[in-house]
Amino acid sequence: MNPIKSDFLLDPNITFLNFGSFGACPKPVFEVYQDFQRKLEFEPVRFLLHDGIKGLESSRKALAHYVNCHHDDLVFVTNPSYGINTIAKSIVLEKGDEILSTNLEYGAMDRTWKHYCDRVGAHYIQQKISLPIKDKATLLEDFWAGSSPKTKAIFISQITSATGLILPVKEICEEAKKRNILTIIDGAHVPAHLPLDLLDLNPDVYVGACHKWMLAPKGSSFLYVKKEQQHWVDPLLISWGYQSDYPSHASFIDYHQTNGTRDFSAFLTVPAAIAYLEKHHWEEEARKCRAMAISNATRFCNLVNSDPTSPLTEDFLGQMFSIPIRSKDPLQLHQLLFETYKIEIPVTVQNGQWYLRYSIQAFNSAQDLDVLEAALLSIKKQGLFL
Amino acid sequence: MNPIKSDFLLDPNITFLNFGSFGACPKPVFEVYQDFQRKLEFEPVRFLLHDGIKGLESSRKALAHYVNCHHDDLVFVTNPSYGINTIAKSIVLEKGDEILSTNLEYGAMDRTWKHYCDRVGAHYIQQKISLPIKDKATLLEDFWAGSSPKTKAIFISQITSATGLILPVKEICEEAKKRNILTIIDGAHVPAHLPLDLLDLNPDVYVGACHKWMLAPKGSSFLYVKKEQQHWVDPLLISWGYQSDYPSHASFIDYHQTNGTRDFSAFLTVPAAIAYLEKHHWEEEARKCRAMAISNATRFCNLVNSDPTSPLTEDFLGQMFSIPIRSKDPLQLHQLLFETYKIEIPVTVQNGQWYLRYSIQAFNSAQDLDVLEAALLSIKKQGLFL
Repeated sequence: MNPIKSDFLLDPNITFLNFGSFGACPKPVFEVYQDFQRKLEFEPVRFLLHDGIKGLESSRKALAHYVNCHHDDLVFVTNPSYGINTIAKSIVLEKGDEILSTNLEYGAMDRTWKHYCDRVGAHYIQQKISLPIKDKATLLEDFWAGSSPKTKAIFISQITSATGLILPVKEICEEAKKRNILTIIDGAHVPAHLPLDLLDLNPDVYVGACHKWMLAPKGSSFLYVKKEQQHWVDPLLISWGYQSDYPSHASFIDYHQTNGTRDFSAFLTVPAAIAYLEKHHWEEEARKCRAMAISNATRFCNLVNSDPTSPLTEDFLGQMFSIPIRSKDPLQLHQLLFETYKIEIPVTVQNGQWYLRYSIQAFNSAQDLDVLEAALLSIKKQGLFL
Repeated sequence: MNPIKSDFLLDPNITFLNFGSFGACPKPVFEVYQDFQRKLEFEPVRFLLHDGIKGLESSRKALAHYVNCHHDDLVFVTNPSYGINTIAKSIVLEKGDEILSTNLEYGAMDRTWKHYCDRVGAHYIQQKISLPIKDKATLLEDFWAGSSPKTKAIFISQITSATGLILPVKEICEEAKKRNILTIIDGAHVPAHLPLDLLDLNPDVYVGACHKWMLAPKGSSFLYVKKEQQHWVDPLLISWGYQSDYPSHASFIDYHQTNGTRDFSAFLTVPAAIAYLEKHHWEEEARKCRAMAISNATRFCNLVNSDPTSPLTEDFLGQMFSIPIRSKDPLQLHQLLFETYKIEIPVTVQNGQWYLRYSIQAFNSAQDLDVLEAALLSIKKQGLFL
C-alpha cells in the first residue's frame, strides 16, 4: 500500500478511485476534528460563543492566506451548494435577465439557478460547450456565444463535475470584467487540486470546498465575495449576525458566519488540513497525480472504444478523468464495479452521455488503475459495454 | 457529583446552569456520534449516498415516534433557525399581510421574519404580552388582540428563550384553526423538556431541537410540516432532491433532506439519544427538574428584589427560570459569575428587561443553586444589583 494511504481512514479493501465526490480526511486532521468536538462538549457555551468564534477567525485567516484573499472577504459555509444558494437567493434578477452558464455544470447548481430564475422570469442559459473540446479558443467562442445584453452574471465551474474538465475561468473573468458582467465561480473541486490565487483570478464570487481536495472533514467549504459586491448578499440563514446588535468591523462575516447552533468543528480543522498538505509537499503530490490521471486517459478510452472529451493536457485536466462510456446498463456497471471488483468509482450522466470518472489522489498507485483496467476488461467480455 | 453528571463531557469545575442555550450530550450518545463519523470516513461514498441515507430514515422514524407524527412529515435540519428560515423564505406573503407573533420571541427569529416581511411590505407583529403574566386567559387575550383580517400566519414559541416561559400554543393552534390562520411553532426548547405530541398539538409547522433537551450532539433538529402544507415549502438550500430525477414517495424529504455534502452524523444519533432518555426514565427526571426550577424561583427573585414574570406553576414554567434583574452592568455581572464563581448562566435582555436564566437538567443538584445563591449574595454586597 502507498504509505500515504495508511494516513487515511479509508477501507483498505476498496480501490478508491472516487476522491472527487466527497474527498477523504487523513487521520491527523480527523483527530483535530474530533478533539474540537470534545472541546465543544466540555464547555458548550464558551466554545460556541467565544473560543470557537476565535478559532473560526484563525481558520479563516489560514484559509485566506492559502487561497490569497483578505480573510474578511471569505466565510465558511457547509458546502459549495450552500455558498451558491446564498448568492442565487440574493442576486437581484429581473424578468428577462440571464445567468450565463454552461451545459457542463453540477446538477444541484442547475436546479438552484433554475429555481431562482424561474421565480422572476429570468433565464438560466446552459450554453452548449462542444465536446470534445478542441482548444481553449473554440471553447471560449462557444461560451461567449451565449452572452447577450441581458447577461447579468456568469456562473461557471472551474473544474466540472461529471466531465472532470478544467474550464478557462481566468480568461472568462477577464472578459466578463470588460463586459461588466458579474462572475460567480464554482470552485468546488479546486482548492489543493489546482493552485488557487483569488486576487489573481479576480472573480466577484467564488466557492470552494475544503472537504474535497483540501482534505478537511465533510461540511467545510467557503464562500468568497469581493468586498464591493458584499452589500447585496443576504445570508441564506438569517440569524443574530444579520443587522446585529453588536456588529463587528466586517458585516459580511456577521451576516454569514452566524447560522444558529451547529457543530462547526469541521471549519476549525482547516489550519490542520493546510499543515498536512504542506508537510507532505502536496503541490508536488498533486502534480504527480495529474500526470498519472492524464497519462492513463488514452489507455482507458481505448479500452471502451471512446475518445477523450478534451485535449489530454494540464490546460483541461487535473486529478480526474472522465472516460466517456456507452453501456446498455450504466447503473449495473457501477454496481458490478463496486460489489464484484471492490472499486469505488462514479458512473455519471450528463447531456445523455455516460462517464466513468476516476480520481487520482496521492494515496493512489499505478496498481489501482491496473485493478480498474482488469475489471473493465472482464466487464467488456460480459458485453456490458456497447 | 450527581451520578448522571459523570455521563456528560461537561467541565466538572463549572456549575453548569445553562443547559438551555446549547444543551449537552452524554458520552454514550457522543460516542455513537463520533463512530458514525469514522464510518463516514471509512467509505465516504457508500455512507453519504447509501448507508447514511438509510440511517437518516431510521432516525426520522425514531424521532417521529418520539414526537408522534408521520416520519415523512418531518425532516432533520441543523437547527431550529434553519427550519424557520425555510418556512419564512417560502411562505407567500403579500403587501399588508401580517405574521402575528409576540414580543417574547428569539431575536434571530425576529430578524428572520422582519427580513422576509420587509421584502414585500408585510408586517411582523410582535404583539405585546403583558408581564408578569396573570393567567392563561389574559395572555391569550393579549395575544389575540394582535390578530386582524390580514393575519396570514402565527409564529410563536412554545417555550420562550430569554424569559423561559411556556406559552399556551395548544389553545392558540385550536383558535387559529377556527380563524383559518397558519400556525408555525418554534419548539426549540421543547423535545424532552415537555411531553410533545404533534398530532395532538396539531400545528401546521413545528420546529424542535434534538441538540438541546433531547441530548443529541449539536446541529441536530427537525422541521415538521403537516402534509397538506408541504407543497409550498421550498428547500432553504436547493440541491439534487429538488425536482429530483429519482423522486421517492415523499417529495418533502427529497426536497429538504438533500443539502449538499455534509457530515450528518448528528442526525443519526437521535435513536441513541432517545434510548438514553428512556433508559434513564427522563420523563421522571424532567418532572423533578421542573419541580426544582419552580420551587427555587421565589428564593432567587427575593434575593434580587424582583417578581417572577408568571405564576410559578407548570402551566408556565418548565426546567428554566428567568430571574428578572436590575443591574448597573449586566455584562460585568455575567463575566463575574463565570470567571470568579465558575457558574455558567446566561444574562439576557428583552424589551429592556434583563434576566438571569437558570436551567435545571438531571445532572444539576440543589447544591448548584446554592452555589448560585452564594455568588449572587456576594455580588449583591458589591452593589452590582440595583
